[in-house]
Amino acid sequence: MVTTWVPNVSPTSDFSLANLPFGIITTPSDPLPHAAVAIGTWVLDLKALSAAPLFAAVFPSLPPQIFSHPTLNRFAALGRPTHRAVRATLQSLLSNAADADPRLRDDAALRAAALLPRASATSHLPMAVGDYTDFYAGYHHAFAVGALFRGPGAELQPNYARLPVGYHGRASSVVVSGTLIRRPVGQFVLPDDPAGAPVVGPSRRVDFEVELGCFMARGNEMGVGVPVEEAEDFVFGYVLLNDWSARDVQAWEYVPLGPFNSKNFGTTVSPWVVLADALEPFRVKGVENPAGEVLEYLRGREDAVFDIGLEVDLTTPEGDTMTISKTTSKHLMWSFPQMIAHHTLGGCPLRTGDLLGSGTISGPGGPEERGCLLEMTQGGKKEILLYGMDARTYLKDGDTITIRGACGEPGARVGFGECRGRIYSAEQRK
Amino acid sequence: MVTTWVPNVSPTSDFSLANLPFGIITTPSDPLPHAAVAIGTWVLDLKALSAAPLFAAVFPSLPPQIFSHPTLNRFAALGRPTHRAVRATLQSLLSNAADADPRLRDDAALRAAALLPRASATSHLPMAVGDYTDFYAGYHHAFAVGALFRGPGAELQPNYARLPVGYHGRASSVVVSGTLIRRPVGQFVLPDDPAGAPVVGPSRRVDFEVELGCFMARGNEMGVGVPVEEAEDFVFGYVLLNDWSARDVQAWEYVPLGPFNSKNFGTTVSPWVVLADALEPFRVKGVENPAGEVLEYLRGREDAVFDIGLEVDLTTPEGDTMTISKTTSKHLMWSFPQMIAHHTLGGCPLRTGDLLGSGTISGPGGPEERGCLLEMTQGGKKEILLYGMDARTYLKDGDTITIRGACGEPGARVGFGECRGRIYSAEQRK
Ligand SMILES: [Ca+2]
Ligand SMILES: [Ca+2]
Ligand SMILES: [Mg+2]
Ligand SMILES: [Mg+2]
Ligand code: NI
Repeated sequence: MVTTWVPNVSPTSDFSLANLPFGIITTPSDPLPHAAVAIGTWVLDLKALSAAPLFAAVFPSLPPQIFSHPTLNRFAALGRPTHRAVRATLQSLLSNAADADPRLRDDAALRAAALLPRASATSHLPMAVGDYTDFYAGYHHAFAVGALFRGPGAELQPNYARLPVGYHGRASSVVVSGTLIRRPVGQFVLPDDPAGAPVVGPSRRVDFEVELGCFMARGNEMGVGVPVEEAEDFVFGYVLLNDWSARDVQAWEYVPLGPFNSKNFGTTVSPWVVLADALEPFRVKGVENPAGEVLEYLRGREDAVFDIGLEVDLTTPEGDTMTISKTTSKHLMWSFPQMIAHHTLGGCPLRTGDLLGSGTISGPGGPEERGCLLEMTQGGKKEILLYGMDARTYLKDGDTITIRGACGEPGARVGFGECRGRIYSAEQRK
Repeated sequence: MVTTWVPNVSPTSDFSLANLPFGIITTPSDPLPHAAVAIGTWVLDLKALSAAPLFAAVFPSLPPQIFSHPTLNRFAALGRPTHRAVRATLQSLLSNAADADPRLRDDAALRAAALLPRASATSHLPMAVGDYTDFYAGYHHAFAVGALFRGPGAELQPNYARLPVGYHGRASSVVVSGTLIRRPVGQFVLPDDPAGAPVVGPSRRVDFEVELGCFMARGNEMGVGVPVEEAEDFVFGYVLLNDWSARDVQAWEYVPLGPFNSKNFGTTVSPWVVLADALEPFRVKGVENPAGEVLEYLRGREDAVFDIGLEVDLTTPEGDTMTISKTTSKHLMWSFPQMIAHHTLGGCPLRTGDLLGSGTISGPGGPEERGCLLEMTQGGKKEILLYGMDARTYLKDGDTITIRGACGEPGARVGFGECRGRIYSAEQRK
């Protein structure tokens, strides 16, 4: 295993040399948002690096300002072969292998300028999101929610196994990890109101949804679809995503045009974009499609989902943290290449920076492997227990949800860091 | 009635002195997209105007480059009082009233530089659209579609009269009038297939939807809703909107998360944004809500919709044009202020340039006042007749749909020009 000369990179760090995820930071010395990669508890400030002669020497074909922009969109638009080459060069600069490039390692002044403690940097939303689409590709989630609402024998809608069901989400409320989320006020019907007249008030059923997010590197021309076997070339990288959901609002509003205010009050993503290439070693086959063979435009390679371990922590307002769920992203039945092929089938243009959500990822077992409280509590009927006799059906004001995800062996882990958000009261301003 | 010195402005022109809609153009002498207003068969090139000393004299507080950007977003973001003042100043410069500002009228060189035949300019999408939301506020449309799918007694869903139902649309495929629209390939179930196995192919049920579009001037902070009585201050202006729809794809995909590929292949808007102030004289009360009083956050002034006459022309591939529908936007049951209040109720942030669609606007009568073919043909069961024994259930390749809309008396008409698009074959590239 090739290791790094960067000090104190723990074998359990999400940000090993095998990862090098990209993000947007500000630092005490540079308050304009700009690009960096994460390694261990450090960031390599790519804008600071690009001020040194070394930058043009190792990246002769990169535009000199490429890492000085407030989002990664321009870098993403350069395409996967460029991302791959840049990541490999950065790996060499950060490696302590005998044949690695020593010029950063041996330059104390440049190290001091560009290698900064991650704790000193503030992370920002890594991409400007043109459009956000949320899919429903987690098989066990769709099955469990269907069982809850329609009962046994009718769990999956007839279209579920035939196409990656999805809906257009709200790009304006996609926020970076750490952003506070206000409990939404909404319109809903109280469960004990026989007349069914709606009321307005703070949602009583605020939930999270554990998802993978996929950022597009490049787009397609309007009217021209992306073949499934080419779709991976359009991907920049992946993040963790929490699709906050107000279940009472959703139940009342969603017929016939789908979820709206129940979803658009906030969607949190983790700050570090794990490049598609970093996840290559973790390909697996997804969940078997119960319909058998899919239509031809959806037939791509079989190992097109990733086996990423996912964990969800709930931290109470009192500060007690408990891991309430563990699952893996191999529970997706549709892959991102299939989602992209389907999304563009009719000619819909995707653009650099567009975000695709996988849909909630749940395991097939008990509450401890489910990706949202709706499933864990069977629609709010069974509480989950926390430490100290505390319990939840849905989230309380002051609760924090933290999603973590990683794959790979110690010392070469490819992880996402945290996707974290705290719900604050509808009655208060931030 | 105050008239203009601009030559040959017909009393029937949509672009009277009482209108002065804003758009984005390129011209033979200036190929960079920039702002203009339309008057009669002319455009007043605002970038050309801003190069003259007169500009700073009449607009001392406007940023000098405000009309040199490729979209109207920055101008929109200045807010309604600014739009109102700028429009009033332009009206004075273009008026032949005795007390009008004569400095443009009397400056032959500036007139030659800034007042150009509209036919010599190319129109572009007027705003950068961050997010696009489509509502369902046309009462007679919702009622008729419900009758078609659910039968008498169950026309309206229980939520319909309680909240402005809407869904997130696709911003990337919002295009300006004139853009060709490829017939989408999609997945759908053939009506005569008893097994109901889906197929993939060019949609056989491509439809249009007549709507009003509303562009946002400014946004709200995430977490902080817009009260209904303040919502009009957030509006920049209005356009005509055609929400192209593939009905066979829609029927198969829309459960349970709403329309997706059936809608995201294209949405056409008219190029000239009619400022909110220009529509002030045409306020009316919308359709009576059958549920009676709405919840408090939706209670705004009653005359909050506009009475804009709408017409739809179908032009066949052979070039025959027939007006197939006439209706008015007073058939909306929810107003844009209500849509904005509802959209932001849970804290969803709107941003400058965001687009809201009203939903299909239909009259209560026969096919000749319906806003889409789904209604006109009762779900494809009754053909509509065109000239020369031609007929349609849904659109054929090569068909052009042109929506027009206007209000006001001859000589002071406030109109939108055209919202036009032609469907080309799924088998061909543009
Ligand atoms: Ca979701
Ligand atoms: Ca529509
Ligand atoms: Mg969300
Ligand atoms: Mg559309
Ligand atoms: Ni009516």
